[in-house]
Amino acid sequence: MFEARLVQSAILKKVLDAVKDLLTEATFECSDSGIQVQAMDNAHVSLVSLNLRSDGFDKYRCDRNLSMGMSISCMSKILRCAGAEDTVTLRAWDNPESIVFIFESPNKEKLAEYEMKLINMDQEHLGIPETSYSCVVKMPTTEFTRICRDLSQFGESITFACSKEGIKFSASGDYGSACNLFSLLTLLKCKGNSTFSSMPRFSNIKLAQTADADNEEEAVTVNMQEPVKLTFSCRYLNCFVKAGPLCNQVQLSMSDDVPLVCEYKIGDIGHIRYYLAPKIDDEEEN
Amino acid sequence: MFEARLVQSAILKKVLDAVKDLLTEATFECSDSGIQVQAMDNAHVSLVSLNLRSDGFDKYRCDRNLSMGMSISCMSKILRCAGAEDTVTLRAWDNPESIVFIFESPNKEKLAEYEMKLINMDQEHLGIPETSYSCVVKMPTTEFTRICRDLSQFGESITFACSKEGIKFSASGDYGSACNLFSLLTLLKCKGNSTFSSMPRFSNIKLAQTADADNEEEAVTVNMQEPVKLTFSCRYLNCFVKAGPLCNQVQLSMSDDVPLVCEYKIGDIGHIRYYLAPKIDDEEEN
Amino acid sequence: MFEARLVQSAILKKVLDAVKDLLTEATFECSDSGIQVQAMDNAHVSLVSLNLRSDGFDKYRCDRNLSMGMSISCMSKILRCAGAEDTVTLRAWDNPESIVFIFESPNKEKLAEYEMKLINMDQEHLGIPETSYSCVVKMPTTEFTRICRDLSQFGESITFACSKEGIKFSASGDYGSACNLFSLLTLLKCKGNSTFSSMPRFSNIKLAQTADADNEEEAVTVNMQEPVKLTFSCRYLNCFVKAGPLCNQVQLSMSDDVPLVCEYKIGDIGHIRYYLAPKIDDEEEN
Repeated sequence: MFEARLVQSAILKKVLDAVKDLLTEATFECSDSGIQVQAMDNAHVSLVSLNLRSDGFDKYRCDRNLSMGMSISCMSKILRCAGAEDTVTLRAWDNPESIVFIFESPNKEKLAEYEMKLINMDQEHLGIPETSYSCVVKMPTTEFTRICRDLSQFGESITFACSKEGIKFSASGDYGSACNLFSLLTLLKCKGNSTFSSMPRFSNIKLAQTADADNEEEAVTVNMQEPVKLTFSCRYLNCFVKAGPLCNQVQLSMSDDVPLVCEYKIGDIGHIRYYLAPKIDDEEEN
Repeated sequence: MFEARLVQSAILKKVLDAVKDLLTEATFECSDSGIQVQAMDNAHVSLVSLNLRSDGFDKYRCDRNLSMGMSISCMSKILRCAGAEDTVTLRAWDNPESIVFIFESPNKEKLAEYEMKLINMDQEHLGIPETSYSCVVKMPTTEFTRICRDLSQFGESITFACSKEGIKFSASGDYGSACNLFSLLTLLKCKGNSTFSSMPRFSNIKLAQTADADNEEEAVTVNMQEPVKLTFSCRYLNCFVKAGPLCNQVQLSMSDDVPLVCEYKIGDIGHIRYYLAPKIDDEEEN
Repeated sequence: MFEARLVQSAILKKVLDAVKDLLTEATFECSDSGIQVQAMDNAHVSLVSLNLRSDGFDKYRCDRNLSMGMSISCMSKILRCAGAEDTVTLRAWDNPESIVFIFESPNKEKLAEYEMKLINMDQEHLGIPETSYSCVVKMPTTEFTRICRDLSQFGESITFACSKEGIKFSASGDYGSACNLFSLLTLLKCKGNSTFSSMPRFSNIKLAQTADADNEEEAVTVNMQEPVKLTFSCRYLNCFVKAGPLCNQVQLSMSDDVPLVCEYKIGDIGHIRYYLAPKIDDEEEN
């Protein structure tokens, strides 16, 4: 028997919101140590890795390892039926054909049960090597979400440029060129600088490294071995930011020619990580 | 002359919201005792019965009985123009060709008048026999609204099963079967029970009879002569719940082979009742 | 060099919201005295006149007069990227091909720059003669917005009738006739009046002149030399009311056979005026 209970069903709701734009179905690997999902998005471009540790649940029992294929859209529909204060229990039997979601209201008056049929899915567990990254940036999720949304109005991809002075996000617009030619530091110091006028429409956003240790949730910190500059598709970034409600800070890990890791903690229970390869564009390289 | 005045125009707004999905036009019968509407929905499946007593109005005068055919969508548009704090007056003359809606703001500064042409309609007053019902359930409207909305995600109809332990709402999904096989009581007591795993996807919600007399508005009460189990179309239930804003509690009256009555009180002024015949399905019967 | 700085970028956002439904592009005339825009709407029916005085900006510098053609939709997109608390700076060089929008967050942590390419546009500065008007009405913008929205449900145009007793807005509905036949004063005094019943569906709203000097923002004041009655297209009125968030009061200036002027103040910095010619309709004239 498999049974996992979370007093805050809202967490599971947010997890589903964080993956439902990328995955239509996924295999949930349940073992004694917890629940794991690892899946490529539908277009096989990005990778989602979800980890919920057993000790993070309010009750957890898994008699034998289970691989359960689930429809993400159906699961998401079911979780929408949970009240904001409800406790959720997931339950399945050995060799299950279905999984049951049980929602209990705080006063125990209402009990809702949803049984969802499982899906047969091919399983391929992808090995993700642990790497050390050139730059690791932590910033408020609201800020990152906003930047991805704002800049994607102006182009299909966003360039992340990381240096000791901070991180710069930029996008180039309809007129084709990108804004690679100036240092933001220079820009900040000598506003009279005239490199702008010869450039076509572009947009960039810079966040300084904040030293304000009092307010860790609002801090932007850059931990850099060497500078990186990588370009990513807006479409996927805008899917990743759906995980924003899970966590106040997002962590971006970057190295040249290696996929970006975009990580959100899920309370004390685990994390969700998105992997996305940078765009390789000869014109970008100059 | 006919004149009816309500200090709270918001009530009339909510009444219109409660019928406008079911009726495009309706005959308003005005007499000395009040205003009555009785009409089948456009598809002639459900029946709406609205009663507003003359003594519930702040001012009421009806010199002779009038039957006024009105466009519900036009009336709804007009009522949307009333401010939240406005007083509304309905006024018509004998043998009217139109009815006037007058909105006055609390400070009397603004006076809005809308004249709506009446419609000629065939009249048929349907006799609804008073019946005693096997089960009468009262529950919070928010709860009922939510259940209807949640379960209609999973099937086209909802089964209401009423017993001394409470009432169970269930719907069956894409895979066709319903969840008739177990008692919810059993389910609550012996969670290890394994009847689940052989069943296809289904969903059900149970509300226990609450004894908390302190909070009548949140109570669920079941008054049962004998158990009933009836199935109703989600489509109509989801129209009925639009009356939710009128009242904190909804009353569901059920007997075998007799239409469900779904009643919402309208303040101290009257009520709206919806009648809906249960679905008869051979496969449901077993 | 041209540089204009506003601590409250929100004002510029609201200005854009006030014009973006009417204009797709416009020429911004910048001089030592401030920024001016004067443009016909896309259909060449109404005229928008925007004036932002240089002394209203927190910093303003304009070395030589510039005429900059801008895409309103692109500018609106860019301003949507400003945070609620951001400072905005507009910057361009002499003979500019582009203009830069710089947003700075209050804590200086985030700096966002958007460069927008300018558009070549034909320039025609329209002379608008100063006129004295028969009636000048001031009223709360929320009230005016609501009236335009409500009445446009019932007809394509709204008649503004102004007299010493106040101002009446009316629209006539599907059945074609307008409600020109009665005085609202009469209506208020003798409610038993029966001119209604012979009239088709119409709607009108009257606002009395309020003497409550304590609350100037909610006051309706009518300054009248002689009565006017003019009819305007709902479509344009509903574009003008988009300026509502800029100001608590709107000023309507009217004379026979002369365009309506609908004016909203923009804080201490300037104003936006909309001009709209009345409809000339033989049947309206009676």
